[in-house]
Amino acid sequence: MEYLEQIGRRAKGAETVLRTLDGGRKDQALLTAAEYLRAESALVLQANEEDMAQARKKGMAPGLLDRLSLTQERIEAMAEGLTQVAAAGDPVGEVTEMKKRPNGLLIGKKRVPLGVVGIIYESRPNVTADAFGLCFKAGNAVILKGGSDALSSNRAIVAAIGRALSDCGLPKEAVQLIDSPDRLVTAGFMKMNGYVDVLIPRGGAGLIRTVVQESTVPVIETGTGNCHIYVDDPADLSMAAKILYNAKTQRTGVCNACESLVVHEAVAGRFLPMAAACLAEKKVELRGDARAMAAEKSIVPATEEDWGKEYLDYILSVKVVKDIGEAIAHINRYNTGHSETIVTKDYAHAQRFLDEIDAAAVYVNASTRFTDGGEFGFGAEIGISTQKLHARGPMGLKELTTTKYIIYGEGQVRE
Amino acid sequence: MEYLEQIGRRAKGAETVLRTLDGGRKDQALLTAAEYLRAESALVLQANEEDMAQARKKGMAPGLLDRLSLTQERIEAMAEGLTQVAAAGDPVGEVTEMKKRPNGLLIGKKRVPLGVVGIIYESRPNVTADAFGLCFKAGNAVILKGGSDALSSNRAIVAAIGRALSDCGLPKEAVQLIDSPDRLVTAGFMKMNGYVDVLIPRGGAGLIRTVVQESTVPVIETGTGNCHIYVDDPADLSMAAKILYNAKTQRTGVCNACESLVVHEAVAGRFLPMAAACLAEKKVELRGDARAMAAEKSIVPATEEDWGKEYLDYILSVKVVKDIGEAIAHINRYNTGHSETIVTKDYAHAQRFLDEIDAAAVYVNASTRFTDGGEFGFGAEIGISTQKLHARGPMGLKELTTTKYIIYGEGQVRE
Repeated sequence: MEYLEQIGRRAKGAETVLRTLDGGRKDQALLTAAEYLRAESALVLQANEEDMAQARKKGMAPGLLDRLSLTQERIEAMAEGLTQVAAAGDPVGEVTEMKKRPNGLLIGKKRVPLGVVGIIYESRPNVTADAFGLCFKAGNAVILKGGSDALSSNRAIVAAIGRALSDCGLPKEAVQLIDSPDRLVTAGFMKMNGYVDVLIPRGGAGLIRTVVQESTVPVIETGTGNCHIYVDDPADLSMAAKILYNAKTQRTGVCNACESLVVHEAVAGRFLPMAAACLAEKKVELRGDARAMAAEKSIVPATEEDWGKEYLDYILSVKVVKDIGEAIAHINRYNTGHSETIVTKDYAHAQRFLDEIDAAAVYVNASTRFTDGGEFGFGAEIGISTQKLHARGPMGLKELTTTKYIIYGEGQVRE
Repeated sequence: MEYLEQIGRRAKGAETVLRTLDGGRKDQALLTAAEYLRAESALVLQANEEDMAQARKKGMAPGLLDRLSLTQERIEAMAEGLTQVAAAGDPVGEVTEMKKRPNGLLIGKKRVPLGVVGIIYESRPNVTADAFGLCFKAGNAVILKGGSDALSSNRAIVAAIGRALSDCGLPKEAVQLIDSPDRLVTAGFMKMNGYVDVLIPRGGAGLIRTVVQESTVPVIETGTGNCHIYVDDPADLSMAAKILYNAKTQRTGVCNACESLVVHEAVAGRFLPMAAACLAEKKVELRGDARAMAAEKSIVPATEEDWGKEYLDYILSVKVVKDIGEAIAHINRYNTGHSETIVTKDYAHAQRFLDEIDAAAVYVNASTRFTDGGEFGFGAEIGISTQKLHARGPMGLKELTTTKYIIYGEGQVRE
């Protein structure tokens, strides 16, 4: 498709410049982009108002309208995000593992940008600035495909950033927006092998599944979290209740929220009434198996479908198990490889859970809500990878880079 | 497809055992598998004879027949390969970057197996034992789909390894062969999301392209190498000739062989006759642009297609450029991201080439033929990745693993 080929060629051109750009110039460009967003906030807000008017006319649900909406504060938050990324260390250029081989070759691994990153996301215009900032700092050109409902907002944000880049003597094609709502264009974007090095979908499970299924470009799968808390025997049950309450209710719509409680049969009789009482404050619905229902009468029956469900709502599934082995098997069967916690006092059980659970983040005695780039100390994140290739867990700047081998020789040939 | 689902479920079962298996038991199983291959060599040779007879009847080309053929020595080499993998260090279990966060959480990164690895390859039965050995040592279950022409040989090899695993009290499903020649089964294998964590194609460009296009499981692209040697001004021209001769002719059918020569115009007049003279020993055909032809009369005209071609044969394309900038642009346009060399005496040119060339391995003054797990000091390799995600360049045992975050808490919840 000629339109996409042009975008791809321009991204490749920008990539060549970014690949070797000094950290200082990148940071200056990020700060300039932050200034332009602030200076052009009236234009951005006006564009957002167009999107909002369209969305209201279509009868968009209030939650989605809120995601789409921009305010002066939200624009300031985007600008502040770019400022923070400018302050972070440059991940590019470090050479590690440099070793001399017996034949005298000096071989090392140099950290370099990925190249061209594609991001497909829904109608949250703030992702536009955030994704640009992280990709740019890591030396990548970025091609953005946001939700059609946010098209005017995204155009205004990308235009402001582009002017900032031009002002700094850098190619504005370092960030490009696919501004066609045509589904064929989106389908073509997922097949831009040779132009796009990696595609990162950000959004709900449906979007991610589509990108995984359709894309021929390498994808980093992010997001879906069917996170479990397993309350062991012996465990500090009041600690367990506090962790469960935090992980389930502090924010329900996020991927690191708890969706399922697994309880050892020896503590179910005491713990489930405690758990139900504190979750009742937030009107959380509990759906359990027969033994859970026997232990706590407010629990309603769960179906097979509940075990695999990411509710993103005030609902929790509850499973009673006979031992830690059954708990681990249940979690490994139904989890999405995101975040899992054991609450226990037993040393061997803690170690076994850490060893055997197959997930991006495995916790002992802490809330699953900590799986987050900021909480892990990485600064901003582009998403949380739930796949095993390249990056697993919160993805910071380093995960937006790759390495290449560099080899210093003196005329060596292979015998 | 029920057949593939069964294979997937069995692989998942084996994966659970391998995930936490001690290094000592893995090594013992590898040594036992080596013994079984030796002890059952008559069975394997007999099975191979069946494949060879079929292949001869079909009129298979001599080169392919040679790849398919097994001998006592080749079986010994497979057994020796497993023994060497047993002697290598265990990549699994290391915990790095363990840090205490301000809230007291202790967060670290633990190296763990990928899970289930799928390998799709052509009719080289030795890949069967090699791929099993590397995947198993890294703690992975492996599902193999070899070329249909090698089916009997592969069945015999997998059966011998399976008996060795059972003997060691381990699940023989740690290695499974897809033994249906049905193309629909192969297509289904590439879409086993949920069962297969990564698919690695090993073989020619056509096979790799198909897997990249068709697979919905994450793929690691390996192999294709359109490798360049750029002879700069100033350069030691006799060193350049030696490196070119080695990279082009030491073995022509491999991915790290040189396929294209790029020469600075200031040295073309002296270097091209030298290069042509030494390559004439091996009857290498040179296809060049007009300026290359002007400098050396044995050079025939190249077409646009030649610049992007991986010949795997005694043919070399030759391009004359006006400076290092044009050389880098040419190489980055036509290369496949494998291995590229500059021959130079100039410090700044060497550094610029290392910085700006976009490839898995970038050399100064050495043959491209060194891009190889053994030559890099990794021991055996599963292939050479030419993509940027997860692994780039020769892939050893470590590249067959991933990491997970492990977090030790004391009841922390998120505010």
